[in-house]
Amino acid sequence: MLLLRDLTQLATPAGIDAPLRGSALGEVEVIEDAFVLCEGAAIAAVGRMRDLPALDGDVHEVDGSGMCAVPGLVDCHTHAAFGGSRVDEFSLRAGGASYEELHAAGGGILSTVRATREAGDDGLRAAVERHRSWMLRAGTTTFEAKSGYGLDRDTELSSLRAIREAGGIPTWLGAHAVPPEFADADTYLDFALADVLPEAAKLAEAADVFLERGAFDATQARRYLEACRDAGLALRLHGDQFTESGAIPLAVELSARSVDHLEATGEDGIRTLASSDVVGVLLPASALFLDRPMPPARALVEAGAAVALATDFNPGSAFCESLPLVCSLAATQVHLSPAEALAACTVNAAHVLGRADRIGRLAPGYRADITLLDAPDWRYLAYHLGGRVVAGVVAGGELR
Amino acid sequence: MLLLRDLTQLATPAGIDAPLRGSALGEVEVIEDAFVLCEGAAIAAVGRMRDLPALDGDVHEVDGSGMCAVPGLVDCHTHAAFGGSRVDEFSLRAGGASYEELHAAGGGILSTVRATREAGDDGLRAAVERHRSWMLRAGTTTFEAKSGYGLDRDTELSSLRAIREAGGIPTWLGAHAVPPEFADADTYLDFALADVLPEAAKLAEAADVFLERGAFDATQARRYLEACRDAGLALRLHGDQFTESGAIPLAVELSARSVDHLEATGEDGIRTLASSDVVGVLLPASALFLDRPMPPARALVEAGAAVALATDFNPGSAFCESLPLVCSLAATQVHLSPAEALAACTVNAAHVLGRADRIGRLAPGYRADITLLDAPDWRYLAYHLGGRVVAGVVAGGELR
Repeated sequence: MLLLRDLTQLATPAGIDAPLRGSALGEVEVIEDAFVLCEGAAIAAVGRMRDLPALDGDVHEVDGSGMCAVPGLVDCHTHAAFGGSRVDEFSLRAGGASYEELHAAGGGILSTVRATREAGDDGLRAAVERHRSWMLRAGTTTFEAKSGYGLDRDTELSSLRAIREAGGIPTWLGAHAVPPEFADADTYLDFALADVLPEAAKLAEAADVFLERGAFDATQARRYLEACRDAGLALRLHGDQFTESGAIPLAVELSARSVDHLEATGEDGIRTLASSDVVGVLLPASALFLDRPMPPARALVEAGAAVALATDFNPGSAFCESLPLVCSLAATQVHLSPAEALAACTVNAAHVLGRADRIGRLAPGYRADITLLDAPDWRYLAYHLGGRVVAGVVAGGELR
Repeated sequence: MLLLRDLTQLATPAGIDAPLRGSALGEVEVIEDAFVLCEGAAIAAVGRMRDLPALDGDVHEVDGSGMCAVPGLVDCHTHAAFGGSRVDEFSLRAGGASYEELHAAGGGILSTVRATREAGDDGLRAAVERHRSWMLRAGTTTFEAKSGYGLDRDTELSSLRAIREAGGIPTWLGAHAVPPEFADADTYLDFALADVLPEAAKLAEAADVFLERGAFDATQARRYLEACRDAGLALRLHGDQFTESGAIPLAVELSARSVDHLEATGEDGIRTLASSDVVGVLLPASALFLDRPMPPARALVEAGAAVALATDFNPGSAFCESLPLVCSLAATQVHLSPAEALAACTVNAAHVLGRADRIGRLAPGYRADITLLDAPDWRYLAYHLGGRVVAGVVAGGELR
């Protein structure tokens, strides 16, 4: 057994059967002077130190004084399977070029596709492992990661395998961009759905599409997603990043798990999302990285939409694996409270990944995934901007 | 001797006798496959591995492969001497209250004044030490820190001593706010200049004033600064944070070392600053933290002004000790290139602190202050948003 004792605070979102929304999003339970008891890979008990039961047997005690415990953070939107870097492009953009200009000039996603294809199986495996270790240091104990920088059969499948081997939850982003060897999006989708989907469906849990001007339109996205649904995959969409693209109505119609980005979403989209079960995944680090408008997070929450927060970790538009930084951005840039931000990157993110019965909360029976904060108050998760606020994590009952 | 060998890259700004400005700001020298040789507390040599001379005697070699070296980062604007926290206020602001509203409601600076006075000498010393250790982890090898949360004689002097004992460069911010026991700013300044300045001048290197609506006006700032100048202190000003306040003309007239913030500076101010020797210290983490407009950094550089970057680390408006994050914000929010950002938080920051002959560059004779980046390219300093990009530092020739 592992006992985290004398924790200054423990903070956990409320647990329900559906994603938290409205005022429930901000209802975090805080226990002062707390303990967490883990048995194997699961949480056995959580409570105040004065209620700690007598323990028999072999107990590994960890002194948590001066630290706070929150649920292991859940990053439900990353592109962690890539080769190469985009630091040249980043530096050019700092000088004034826009993301779309760089994309059109042959930089952008396709430059990472080249580097990812060149990386090979071993290179890709090493890259995902490295990114995984960065996430762990930043307090992320569960991560989703997408393929989508291969866009040929072998590299897409290799990406999904590398994600799975690193302990990630793989999403097949077969419709990320049209690779240069295809004349247009429809021809590429013919190939992807016939030649890649059958194998990808065995490796991935979900499918995702980049529905955006210059990538895939709503008709193409529908075709791709319906085929993926028929192959047994859960559905997600990149939508409304630069332009309102029809992603929200399509997501609702197809009962997608999430629609992600939403920087360009207007009032109608907010209303439509709020009256659905689709989670809006907000990626403020990407908006910051590209110096684009932030998503209308506050309006979404006020309207009653379920929202999650994620990093969007990728080399081009969000080279950022830090959910604590995302929480700081959520608090300062889009006015989510620290409690709302915490719920959005734990329990609600777990819903997006279909795992809210196992992760995203500190409660008996849940997986023993715990993020320990070097802080006197759990809200330092958002307050300590860019600080090394994560002291360590417990993942599956093991102190890392 | 300490030898850092096989560094993937070494990057250092050019050295000149005055702060870098205009196109010179972006001229960083990059050496691939590099070494740095330190002898005692100083850099003895810098170069390419193939030019490494034969070394006699006791050499401690550090394998720098996979790492990049940049000059130890210089944080020329922090408020590291404080007690307490402002996490409650931060959480309220996330819910929509403005910084000025919170200030007016008795939160803001005066709440930290209360906590700082209560901290006592030991508490203050421990706080500055802790903040210093955070900065070191974030790659900062030289830091300035201001008093200004005491605002009584004992706490101001205790703050300056705590900063000095932690190895910081103390600035007396005697004119930060009017403490509650004084009726108005002028009465407070009577006290501060008569009772605190004589002792503060023995401990501090510079004086600073918060020239802003609700704090001190230009007439009061002039009176304070002239007295401080006569007592032998270098001069700095907080100016144009929320409103254009006359700080730039006053800084130029008094030959201040710097004028800091400038979020509200317009075209006239930019022109005036550019034609002077005063450095504009930009604090983008503060603008982000308060969700306020960013300073006109690009316009300042284009106009030929000398600029530096700093964190503004403080509990209320920038709980952020990370200069790497500040570099990321500089690149993404105000369009400084990574090279400009590096120069702005090394050599130009050293100029603000009157130490550009000793720190801020990697060159023989300079202090052996080196920040090691866990990155294949030194520009990850700005590119790796919120990442743990700092692998370690050498401070005064010692690996920390």
